[in-house]
Order: sequence, then structure tokens, then C-alpha cells
Amino acid sequence: MRIVALAGGIGGARFLRGLRELTGPQDEITVIGNTGDDIHLFGLKVCPDLDTVMYTLGGGIHEEQGWGRADETWSVKEELKAYGVGPEWFGLGDRDFATHIVRTQMLGAGYPLSAVTEALCDRWQPGVRLLPMTDDRVETHVKITDESGPRVVHFQEYWVKLHAAVAAEAIVPVGAETAKPAPGVLEAIAAADVILLPPSNPVVSIGTILAVPGIRQAVSDAAAPVVGLSPIIGGAPVRGMADKVLAAVGVEATAEAVALHYGSGLLDGWLVDTADAEAVAAVEAAGISCRAIPLLMTDVPATAEMARAALELAEQVRS
Amino acid sequence: MRIVALAGGIGGARFLRGLRELTGPQDEITVIGNTGDDIHLFGLKVCPDLDTVMYTLGGGIHEEQGWGRADETWSVKEELKAYGVGPEWFGLGDRDFATHIVRTQMLGAGYPLSAVTEALCDRWQPGVRLLPMTDDRVETHVKITDESGPRVVHFQEYWVKLHAAVAAEAIVPVGAETAKPAPGVLEAIAAADVILLPPSNPVVSIGTILAVPGIRQAVSDAAAPVVGLSPIIGGAPVRGMADKVLAAVGVEATAEAVALHYGSGLLDGWLVDTADAEAVAAVEAAGISCRAIPLLMTDVPATAEMARAALELAEQVRS
Repeated sequence: MRIVALAGGIGGARFLRGLRELTGPQDEITVIGNTGDDIHLFGLKVCPDLDTVMYTLGGGIHEEQGWGRADETWSVKEELKAYGVGPEWFGLGDRDFATHIVRTQMLGAGYPLSAVTEALCDRWQPGVRLLPMTDDRVETHVKITDESGPRVVHFQEYWVKLHAAVAAEAIVPVGAETAKPAPGVLEAIAAADVILLPPSNPVVSIGTILAVPGIRQAVSDAAAPVVGLSPIIGGAPVRGMADKVLAAVGVEATAEAVALHYGSGLLDGWLVDTADAEAVAAVEAAGISCRAIPLLMTDVPATAEMARAALELAEQVRS
Repeated sequence: MRIVALAGGIGGARFLRGLRELTGPQDEITVIGNTGDDIHLFGLKVCPDLDTVMYTLGGGIHEEQGWGRADETWSVKEELKAYGVGPEWFGLGDRDFATHIVRTQMLGAGYPLSAVTEALCDRWQPGVRLLPMTDDRVETHVKITDESGPRVVHFQEYWVKLHAAVAAEAIVPVGAETAKPAPGVLEAIAAADVILLPPSNPVVSIGTILAVPGIRQAVSDAAAPVVGLSPIIGGAPVRGMADKVLAAVGVEATAEAVALHYGSGLLDGWLVDTADAEAVAAVEAAGISCRAIPLLMTDVPATAEMARAALELAEQVRS
């Protein structure tokens, strides 16, 4: 089976680990990763979502943290602080730095991000084909108003430094409108047997991927069923601060509202948590097949069960 | 007193530590550092000699090793190896990487190397003004012939990877002929009360600095006495493989031959080790004042004594 998944960071990566557990070598998983949260730090190109997917599937992730490397050391960060060079709020460990150094060197040598990602995955062997959504530079910016007045900050500054403590007034994927899907992205979507939207952030992760011209259309046009999993359980994001960015696009933080935000033009099926079983009827009324199942990714087997339910729902909407 | 010293890496740095011990806050030491051994590794600009001076005088050096940082960790290097990204033969620790990251970021932002070096020294407070010989790119290459036939390698490859095990047929400071002295270099030389040539490599360290157009002439023309210390004791370099690169320029590895290589047009005074006392007469016969004193930098006090002898000899040749 050819499976395509659109993925952000931690939530997407953990879901993919369950999906990979469920599938076998005869299946082919292509992951289209969000690059809107990429950031240049210390002159290096950092791709947090791609790396979280790569480290998680490759066995290098810091499990408790969900991002960054296991057995990490922090000498470089200590030294940068001693030099008075910031920002300090973004956690880059020594092992993680090596990834960014290799990536930046390859980009500087002229390789596109997709080729760089493939080269990095040569080491990590994530068991999926990981494609960045685009080789072009896209950066998600967030409009806020705080004591400094109205201003626009990089998504990472909003998320990691400010902890999304102020309201996001607008989310702008700068550069998206002129970005092209990376090589293989549209082809993978068109050839897919099933397309999955993991429980990633619907605005700044999957929303950003869909903002690259051509990708939303390709997903809508695809012959394959499109099934998503709600990142919202009981009116709150399982992890992260998705409610803050949903508010910026005028969407309530409920499993139902997120499904309707994607819409029946995009989604064929939607999984909500058993806690949100009352949403099923409303989602189905909007023309999207919906099931309520446990959606907490407590461990890999539980996550594999979610993936199984998603593939089953895809089979059902297909026939 | 205004002292100018031309310095390479370990030998120069250790001498400068003795010199600084000897002098006081009323003295002003300007160090003109060799950048011919700079190398781009992993997309980062590495300046081994400047950093060795900065770390040694700033208290961050790995004492036994003579280069690199104390309390170093090696996670980045481990990861680069796991990615299959080389070279592996150049030892860059995590703390050291931070220096190169800051430097590369500043250079990328448009700051010249001299400004970057000043910014790095803001942290290290080396107690001297450290100037790169030039802000332009100069790279010392070495012509060799080995089982691969005749070829040209970067100096660091010759020195660190090949351990100077094959003969150096020529030493070429690529880019030197069009390089300009960094801001402040010629002014410091002209205003100096004394100019010192520490026991650094006469070819690839001090020779490279003198190869930047204008610097040799400025040293020759300076009103200040120029006093050097032999890096060769008893016919062998105290450290390193200076004999190999001396051979490439047709100079014997003796204290006397190095003095004559610099020549009386440049040198006013020369210190040889007591083991080379028999060289004194020949050096003096060439018009260079010469003394034999212990030249082993066994500790900081012994090195301060060498610096004292150099300043005394400068006083003698001045009058």
C-alpha cells in the first residue's frame, strides 16, 4: 500500500511511528513534512519538524522531550552564551547542531533541501520516504500585540520563546505563495492509496503544507481517500498550543470544528477521540465519515491502533 | 611600552603568555596572528592560530594538547562521523565548534575577520590586542609527492593528516600576494617600541605573515628593534615539524640558519638556546646581535624569562 502522510513535528512523528509499526516492508510511506517552522539560527538552517520526524523514526529522539536528541550534550550552547550570542530560548544540543551543520553545508554547496533531507535520512533510516513540502524558503510568522505594540514574530519565537502566551492575530506562511512543492510531493499524492492527516497542528503544520500552491489541490483531486485524526481531544490540544493558532484563523478548538475547517472538499474521513463521540454526527452531517476511537498516543501499540483505525476508515470511505 | 609580536599557534601563544606575565597594564601588546592555516571545515571558518592565541591567553586552552579547549566534549564530531561527513582528521570539539559558528555567522553577516576576532576576544580578554595579519583569504598550500603522485594539499592536511611525513616541496601562501594587511597592522608596527618574533614556525607562521604585502617592509622600516627567538634547539624544532617546511625553502633546521633566513635586513637581535651557543658568533657575524639563553618554555615563569631576555636584547641593540 502506498501511504502519504502530511506531518508536523512531535504529534506527526509519534503517529508515524505507530503507522510504521502497523505496516510492513511491502508498504511505502511517504511523509510530506512541514518546513514552515524552519529557522536560521547562528547562521545554520534548522528544520525542527523534519528533524523530529527523522529522529523519532530513526531512534534518535529524546523520548520524554519529544524533540531533540537522546543522550544530548550542551557544550555549544554554553559557549554561545559565554560569547553573548543568542537567542538562548531555542534549545539546540551538540548532537542536534551536527545535523544543522551538515544540512547548512550541503545547502551552501547547492543541494536542495529535499536532497539534503534524503542524505540525512541515509543515516537515520526512518523507514519512510521523508520529503520537505518544498525546497523553497517558507517561514511561518505570527502577528501579535504585546507590551511592545503590534508586531510580527517568527513562529518559533511565538511558540518556544513566548509560549503562545499572547493571542495570535494572524498566521502568515511567508513565501508560501511562491513556493513550489518539492520534487516527488505531487507525484506521491497522486499515486497514493491512502492519504493521512496525522494529529498534527491543523494551522501551522498541516495548514502550512496545504498552503504551498498545488498541494491542497492535489490532495483534493487524489483518487485516494483522505483520513485525518483530530489533534484536539475534549476541547483542548493533546500537546502544544494548537488552540492559540486555531483562534487566529477563527476556528474553535474542538474536534468537530477542525474537521469542518479542513472541510469535506479535502477530508473523506475523520477520527475523533471517544471523549468527543458527540461530534461524530455533526462531522458526518458535513459529509465526512467519522468514528470515535481512543486517540491518546500513550505508547507505540496504542498509536498503531490509531493508524489501524485510520486505514480501516479509509477502506470504508473508499467502498 | 608598545610591543608588537608576530605569532603562529602553540609556540607563539605560549611565548605571549610569558610576555604578558612579564609586562604590566602600562604596556600595550599587539599580536599579529597568522591566518594562513585557516581552513573551511563543515562550512565553518576555522582559524587555528588565532584561536590558539585567544584560548591560551584567555585561559581556555587545553594545556597538555596545546590547541583546542579545556573540558572539551566531542558530540558534534561523533555525529558528523555517523553522518559520514568528513574530514575526521581535524579535531574540532564542541566548545571549539561554538567559536567557529559565531565566527562564520559574523563573517556571513559581513563583518571582516579583524572585527570578528575583536568580538571573540571581548569574551576571552586575552590581555593583548589580537589582529589577524589580513582580512583577506590566504591559505597555505603545500606541494608534495606521495603514492598519489605530485599534488598540492592544504597546510592542515599536510600537518595534521599527513603528519608532515612526506617532504614538502614548496609552500605557497595562496592569496597572500593580493592580500592587504588588516586594519591596524601596519600602524601598530610603525608605532612599536619593540617588535618580537616568538619561536613560531619561521616558514608557515611568521613567513606567511611577512608574505602579506607591506608587512615585511613595515617591520624592516620600523624604528623599533626587531628581536626573534629561535624555534630550533639543537638542530630540531622544539615542537611541530618546522624542519620539514624549512627544508622546502632550502633552510637548514638550525638556530643559525633560521636567523640568516630572516636576515639582518629584518632582524636586529636573535636569541638561541644555550645548547646552540656555538651559533652566536656566526649570527653576530651576519650583523645580528645574538645571545644564548634557555629557550625551553617549560612553564610560564621560564617563558617570562625568555621574554625578559628578548626585551633586554632589544634595549641593547637600540642603544
